[in-house]
Parts: sequence; C-alpha cells; structure tokens
Amino acid sequence: MSENIITAAILVIGDEILSGRTKDKNIGYIAEYCTNIGIDVKEVRVVPDEEAEIVSALNALRSRYSYVFTTGGIGPTHDDITADCIAKAFGVTIDEDPRAMALMLERYKPEDLTPARRRMARIPAGADLILNPISKAPGFRLGNVIVMAGVPMVMQAMLDNVAPTLSTGIKMLSQTIDAHGLPEGLYGGPLGEIAAQHPGLSIGSYPSFKDGVFANQIVVRGRDQAAIDAGLAAVREMLQKLNSDKNPL
Amino acid sequence: MSENIITAAILVIGDEILSGRTKDKNIGYIAEYCTNIGIDVKEVRVVPDEEAEIVSALNALRSRYSYVFTTGGIGPTHDDITADCIAKAFGVTIDEDPRAMALMLERYKPEDLTPARRRMARIPAGADLILNPISKAPGFRLGNVIVMAGVPMVMQAMLDNVAPTLSTGIKMLSQTIDAHGLPEGLYGGPLGEIAAQHPGLSIGSYPSFKDGVFANQIVVRGRDQAAIDAGLAAVREMLQKLNSDKNPL
Repeated sequence: MSENIITAAILVIGDEILSGRTKDKNIGYIAEYCTNIGIDVKEVRVVPDEEAEIVSALNALRSRYSYVFTTGGIGPTHDDITADCIAKAFGVTIDEDPRAMALMLERYKPEDLTPARRRMARIPAGADLILNPISKAPGFRLGNVIVMAGVPMVMQAMLDNVAPTLSTGIKMLSQTIDAHGLPEGLYGGPLGEIAAQHPGLSIGSYPSFKDGVFANQIVVRGRDQAAIDAGLAAVREMLQKLNSDKNPL
Repeated sequence: MSENIITAAILVIGDEILSGRTKDKNIGYIAEYCTNIGIDVKEVRVVPDEEAEIVSALNALRSRYSYVFTTGGIGPTHDDITADCIAKAFGVTIDEDPRAMALMLERYKPEDLTPARRRMARIPAGADLILNPISKAPGFRLGNVIVMAGVPMVMQAMLDNVAPTLSTGIKMLSQTIDAHGLPEGLYGGPLGEIAAQHPGLSIGSYPSFKDGVFANQIVVRGRDQAAIDAGLAAVREMLQKLNSDKNPL
C-alpha cells in the first residue's frame, strides 16, 4: 500500500442504533467527508454499549487502519462508557482532565457541575482534546483514534475541528454516468470487460428503484484523472453502442 | 445465554456505502424489523466489494450470532461478488441454479437472459431461495446466512419473505420517557443508580439536538413487562423529584 493512501474505519457505539430506535446518520456523513479530504473509509462497525465489544472492535480496527473515528457514548449518563473503553484498549489511565473541566466551566457554573457532568471531563491520559462548540464537553484523539459525540450536529462540529490535524492521501476521484434507462443486465457483461481492462480504476454499477422503475448509475473511481477519463470514454462508447443496437436507425 | 435469545448481525457489502456516495438505509430498517420480531441485532459491519474482506467478516459473524443478514452485491455486474463469497466462506460450490433460472424466466424472455443476468441465478449449493417479487432475481439463505439485495425496496420485500422462516426469541420490549427539558447532566447520576438497581433492564438516555436545544429521552428495555414497569416507575419518580427541586412550590 502506497504511503499516499490513508485509510480509516468508523466505529459506531450504541444500543440505540442496533435496536433500530435511532437511525444512524453519522456513517454516511463521515464516509463522504473522509472521501472529500483524501481518506478512504474501508470498514464500519456498529457495536453495543458493552465494554468487551467496544474494546475488541477498537483494537481490531486501530491496528488495521490509519484512523478510527468513533461516535457515541461520551455523554454524562451511566451508559456512556466509550472514554473508559478507549483507555482500556490503549492500556492507559483515565481521569478528570483539567483542560476538559476548564472547557465545561465555559458553559456550566461550578455548582452545576454534577458528578454526571464531570464524567464528560474524564479523558484518557495522553489524549488531545477536540473542541465542541455546541455543548462544550470535548471529544478527544488518542493515537490514531478520534472519539466524537453521537449527536450528529455535535459530531459534525468535532469532525470539522479535528480534520485539519489529520494526514490525508491522494484523493479518490469519482465520476458518475447515468445509464439512461439501459438495464444492468444488458451492459453488465461489457462493463465487466472494461473494468478488467482498467485495473487502476474501481468501476461500479448502482441501481436504484423508484416509482416501479430501476435507474442505474455507473461510477468510475480512481486517483488519476487521465485514467478516469479513459475509463469514462470506454463506458460512454459501450453505452452508445448498446443504445444504437437497441434503437437502430 | 438463554435459548430464547436469538441474535443477529448485519453485513452491508458495498464500496458505495464506504465512499459515502450512497447513504445506507438498510441497517436501521433491518435493526428495527428484527427487534419487532424478537431477534436482537448485536453487531453491524460494512465492508468493501473485496472477496477477502467479505469472506472474513462473514465467517466472523456467522459463527457468533444466530443469523447474519447481508445486503448488497447480488446484481448482474462484475462488482456483484456476494454469492461467490458466500460459497467460498461455506466451502461449497456455486453454479447456475435451475430454480433461480425459472424465476428469472418469469421476467425475461430466454433471449434476453444475457450472461450478466444469468449471473444473478448463481446460487451456492444447498441454499434456499428467497423470493423477490419486485425484480425476480432471488436472494437466498444458506445455513444461518440470509443474503439480500442492496436496493432498499427489494431488500424489504425479501426480508418479508424470509422472516416467517426464522426462529425468534422473547421480544425485547422498550418504553420511552421524555425528560421534558431536564438535562442529562442533572439526572445522569440518579439514572445510573436506578440502572444498577434494575440489572434485568437496559436503561439508556438519548439526547438529540434541534433548533439549538437538547432534548433527552430515557429508554427502558427488557423482556419482562413487570420489570419494565418497575423501572419506568423509578425513572418517573426520579424525574418528578428533580423537577420539584428545580421548581419548588
């Protein structure tokens, strides 16, 4: 793998996602954000609020990818155990962090810092804080793990704050061609041949279904624009040929 | 683990989800569906269209949970490799299945069954088909793995067809209490005590953020309605007390 490829995994923590009560909105947002800054998301996991599950998923992912983004489990209630699990996974201590306390005192009066709220200032040793402009309680980064809130607006603000500190690689470029009514079953064979002839590209075909009709889009992805252009030209020529076979003059 | 607990994992297969181009709608749907029929989703993974990744995730999940639901990768194009990966993971052969061909002939004339479309009739040996009323190309079930399309409407129809064949356990019941403006930081401590006093329940607090304000909901989950009622009563009493402390007469 080239040193210019930066990879990531997303680890979503929370029973409420697994029960279906809350529909996750963070995976798609982080995935698109990472693609746009030159980080390839290669895997996503969702795990329950259980220490053994969080620690084991975190260790599997952080050893394998350049970065791991976690969401969820850093609030003030008893089911918010992410920070403790990160400390456990890294084998470091965790305690109330004076920097985090100072941030929280921007929002809360000292007498309003209940034990529950002080839980949000527990940060593993050695972590850098990630600012939270919305509700102050910070996220943090420890090694290659970026720990963010689960509430989408708070997560998004944290991601904006941490992104400039991340290494990024050569951006994966992507261009989409509409198949204009041609079914996948007609162009699937020739498209596979084009994909085999362009090994530097990733070519995918994505159907959607609306109002009883399938619509298909062909996506050509790669890190080199000239290679993408060549792939696009081949796909367009193939579609044109199929269309003129279908509607001969 | 009691024999009455049935677990599941969801395995989403597709580069388009990891790039953020397509926002997944299947995880939340399957999770909620499973909860409603008495199957606990315990883990979700999203992996790319790469054989080694799919096979390895599938084997990790199918050995651990009662069921694995996969979505994506069973269409007619070269990037649709799910069926072959399932065969590889189970160590069985895969070939054009006459039952699947018969289903597809309900939609396509024989001369329209291109090699690409015939790919959709490739089914691992020993699998049962899952009917697809929308576009005919079937899903399938092999052992405890349920293989479905990625297009949400097709996946949903397949899930309806396979669900009656699945074992289900005692349903996880769930009830929600609105915290009516009380912040998590105020009730977090007492809520943790209630959770500790009700070990048979899973009690969570879920913040959301809208129009600049946090709103919190407390969810009490369990398999025994009497235990849930006791937990709910304790939570309501705690909230009432906090509210009257806040607004003394």
